[in-house]
Amino acid sequence: MTDNTIQAPHERSFADVIRGTLRGAGQVMFQDNAWTGLLIMIGIFWGSYFADGKPAPLVAWGALVGLIVSTAAGYLFESRNDGDQGLWGFNGILVGCAVFTFLGNTVWAWTAMILGSAMTVIARRAFNNVFAPFNTTSYTFPFIAVSWAILLSARLMGELPPVGEATAIFPTEITSPELSFTFPELIKYWLRGISQVFLVDSWVTGIIFIVALAVCSRWAAAWAMIASALALLVAILFNADHVDIVNGLFGYSPVLTGIALGCTFYKPGVKVFLYALAGVIFTVFVQAAMYVFLFPVGIATLTAPFCVATWIFMLPMYKLDNK
Amino acid sequence: MTDNTIQAPHERSFADVIRGTLRGAGQVMFQDNAWTGLLIMIGIFWGSYFADGKPAPLVAWGALVGLIVSTAAGYLFESRNDGDQGLWGFNGILVGCAVFTFLGNTVWAWTAMILGSAMTVIARRAFNNVFAPFNTTSYTFPFIAVSWAILLSARLMGELPPVGEATAIFPTEITSPELSFTFPELIKYWLRGISQVFLVDSWVTGIIFIVALAVCSRWAAAWAMIASALALLVAILFNADHVDIVNGLFGYSPVLTGIALGCTFYKPGVKVFLYALAGVIFTVFVQAAMYVFLFPVGIATLTAPFCVATWIFMLPMYKLDNK
Amino acid sequence: MTDNTIQAPHERSFADVIRGTLRGAGQVMFQDNAWTGLLIMIGIFWGSYFADGKPAPLVAWGALVGLIVSTAAGYLFESRNDGDQGLWGFNGILVGCAVFTFLGNTVWAWTAMILGSAMTVIARRAFNNVFAPFNTTSYTFPFIAVSWAILLSARLMGELPPVGEATAIFPTEITSPELSFTFPELIKYWLRGISQVFLVDSWVTGIIFIVALAVCSRWAAAWAMIASALALLVAILFNADHVDIVNGLFGYSPVLTGIALGCTFYKPGVKVFLYALAGVIFTVFVQAAMYVFLFPVGIATLTAPFCVATWIFMLPMYKLDNK
Repeated sequence: MTDNTIQAPHERSFADVIRGTLRGAGQVMFQDNAWTGLLIMIGIFWGSYFADGKPAPLVAWGALVGLIVSTAAGYLFESRNDGDQGLWGFNGILVGCAVFTFLGNTVWAWTAMILGSAMTVIARRAFNNVFAPFNTTSYTFPFIAVSWAILLSARLMGELPPVGEATAIFPTEITSPELSFTFPELIKYWLRGISQVFLVDSWVTGIIFIVALAVCSRWAAAWAMIASALALLVAILFNADHVDIVNGLFGYSPVLTGIALGCTFYKPGVKVFLYALAGVIFTVFVQAAMYVFLFPVGIATLTAPFCVATWIFMLPMYKLDNK
Repeated sequence: MTDNTIQAPHERSFADVIRGTLRGAGQVMFQDNAWTGLLIMIGIFWGSYFADGKPAPLVAWGALVGLIVSTAAGYLFESRNDGDQGLWGFNGILVGCAVFTFLGNTVWAWTAMILGSAMTVIARRAFNNVFAPFNTTSYTFPFIAVSWAILLSARLMGELPPVGEATAIFPTEITSPELSFTFPELIKYWLRGISQVFLVDSWVTGIIFIVALAVCSRWAAAWAMIASALALLVAILFNADHVDIVNGLFGYSPVLTGIALGCTFYKPGVKVFLYALAGVIFTVFVQAAMYVFLFPVGIATLTAPFCVATWIFMLPMYKLDNK
Repeated sequence: MTDNTIQAPHERSFADVIRGTLRGAGQVMFQDNAWTGLLIMIGIFWGSYFADGKPAPLVAWGALVGLIVSTAAGYLFESRNDGDQGLWGFNGILVGCAVFTFLGNTVWAWTAMILGSAMTVIARRAFNNVFAPFNTTSYTFPFIAVSWAILLSARLMGELPPVGEATAIFPTEITSPELSFTFPELIKYWLRGISQVFLVDSWVTGIIFIVALAVCSRWAAAWAMIASALALLVAILFNADHVDIVNGLFGYSPVLTGIALGCTFYKPGVKVFLYALAGVIFTVFVQAAMYVFLFPVGIATLTAPFCVATWIFMLPMYKLDNK
């Protein structure tokens, strides 16, 4: 996952720091590549200004600030070299996306977001230590833990207006209209499944993200496409909630599971391919289950379904790729 | 827990495979014995066709298919020999019971159940790795995790009709009539506490299960009876919810805790006896607490209270039986 | 954390046992000192009889019985010497406080409280084993697990009347009046943030607790004051729920985090000071988030926000104090 040698802490040039920062955007989808990160940032800005639904420019600026703050926090506080691979920034950028997808634009929302982004550096090291004995890591869970803390707090804190959060309801009150769609619509749902990795609702951004992945790894690009398509198929076959399908909300967690299992933690191969497909399908159910579980508190699952499903597929520590 | 020598993977006869499959039914209650498994299957079929409440034949067929699918998945995918002790099947059989206790009879419910049963093989290895450092295992938690994913998803997926699931309510809205009963009724509640281990509501099945246990281990049969009786006593003394008492729903988790602590993971003895009694009592409260916690999402606790309570009693790693 | 040499189990004098018991009260705030424990008991009795709100004498008697029962259970059942440092009693005393803050005065509530207090000895050893690989412990989590089991069960058990429990609501229904206060009022909120560590609502008790801490450790007293003040500031700046601020409910978890990080698990110093401040701020958000998360089940967070936040700050295993 590295494409250059690690440098001693105080020998980084400005370009090194920029590269390390951009890689944070790439590492959300497991790509240690600054160009991938740059394209992803472009995709986020495009998709937040020209969203398929309501524009949400704040999401892009939150992402940028979260990425910078968390990477800077890592360089300042951490003795390890993870930052050069973008491993400090990938949680922070998502905190920025999540906070401004769900909260309004106040000074204190920005404060919470900035503190939260920096906090992911500590949380990541904490959770990674927990997973270290099992040869795996915490993935995006530091982002999730910190963001849930902020998004739930928003219900009790007047300066964190939960303008984008859902109304809490009982799961048994869910009603969903029948799904009907044309083929071009289906393509949009599929691409939104990829853009929603960064909480962006834009099929164009989905295309930009595929290109961003392909720059670093064609397998990753392929898995993003396969996983979003398979997740969409499963969601449609089981007649899952219409609104969530349309907005790509059954896709983004499986996309991450697919890239993680299919070509990041295992080397591509037949066994690994089938295993990752199973992981993608399972993620759709974990996604639906977590949506339902969180209905009574009215917050989003974020990428937790990906984390939970991928942990369950990584913890067995199967040797699938070294035959 | 084994009663024969482990065989090399490809030297199994058809009879070996049948035995390994049936042991899966026995291992739900920690018995590595094909006859126990067979009697349990008979008990499940009897109890689902001639239930004390509404007949639910699908539960028995789900159990059978889940048992076969998960055992087959283990033989196909796993390199370890756990299957000969029935350790692949005990989660799968429960997935079959749970899915058709709560969901309707659709092609996609069967699909989810079959995929879920196979999935428990992966989940079991994942969770067992987590508990390995503490000299204990994941018990029935793979079944719980997979079944919760399916049962929660059912609220969002039109092809998984949650016909048997509870309506979500606030716990503070619970009202329970006073409990009054005759002695013969009390005996039925006590036996249902045993039959509900497999989500079966039948006092006759409770008797069959006791016989099934006694075939392999008289201690296990004794602990099933002791635990269900003690749990019933605690539930009545604390005036717990009438409906749950009548249906044996305070009994099944303590039954499993009793067998686990009293004669499976510890050798029977005075200290172990008292420790297992404490475990059984604690399980009643964990059971009630988890019921309440899940009210707002309207799903069942399954055997999670047993897992949680037994973990808490196993994790201290007390040496109670080797003095 | 010890101020005398550990003695062989059967050589304890009556005074040793009294000291070990009182230290249990002190260890809730990490102080291995019998005088601290005695002052804390005095503070609890004062604050429960002369509460700022409604008097709740039962809380003090519950605390006393819980402390004695759990310490006795430890001396009877445990082979380790933890009791001389008060490490058996600190969970039991809190169970006593919590049960009678939320439940009514029935024989069965006392029974549940006494069994629960004893149970914390087992639960503590279980959870400590889980955290041992990470060089940290379970803090007050045994108290939380046992108390949640009892407090949730109370909704289903007629003999455990949940007279002090909140009505379950959706978090999106929370409405909070604007906060306005005079300076003397602010001082009371600040001191209640300290008294609420033991679920006591009394600014006088807050002062007694500060004195109790200072007897053993001036740093601990300082951190209690700093943490409650900082938490109050954060809660006010973010315009958090008025009622919770007034009752000190944003203070008690940060107080414990501050003492834990600032002067218990790390030696005081500049880096540690800043790290503990960050921990205190983070705890406020975890506190608010857990309040919201538990709204639909209508139970209290107890000290869980402190545990969660402090684990996240301890698990990275930073070396902050040995430069």
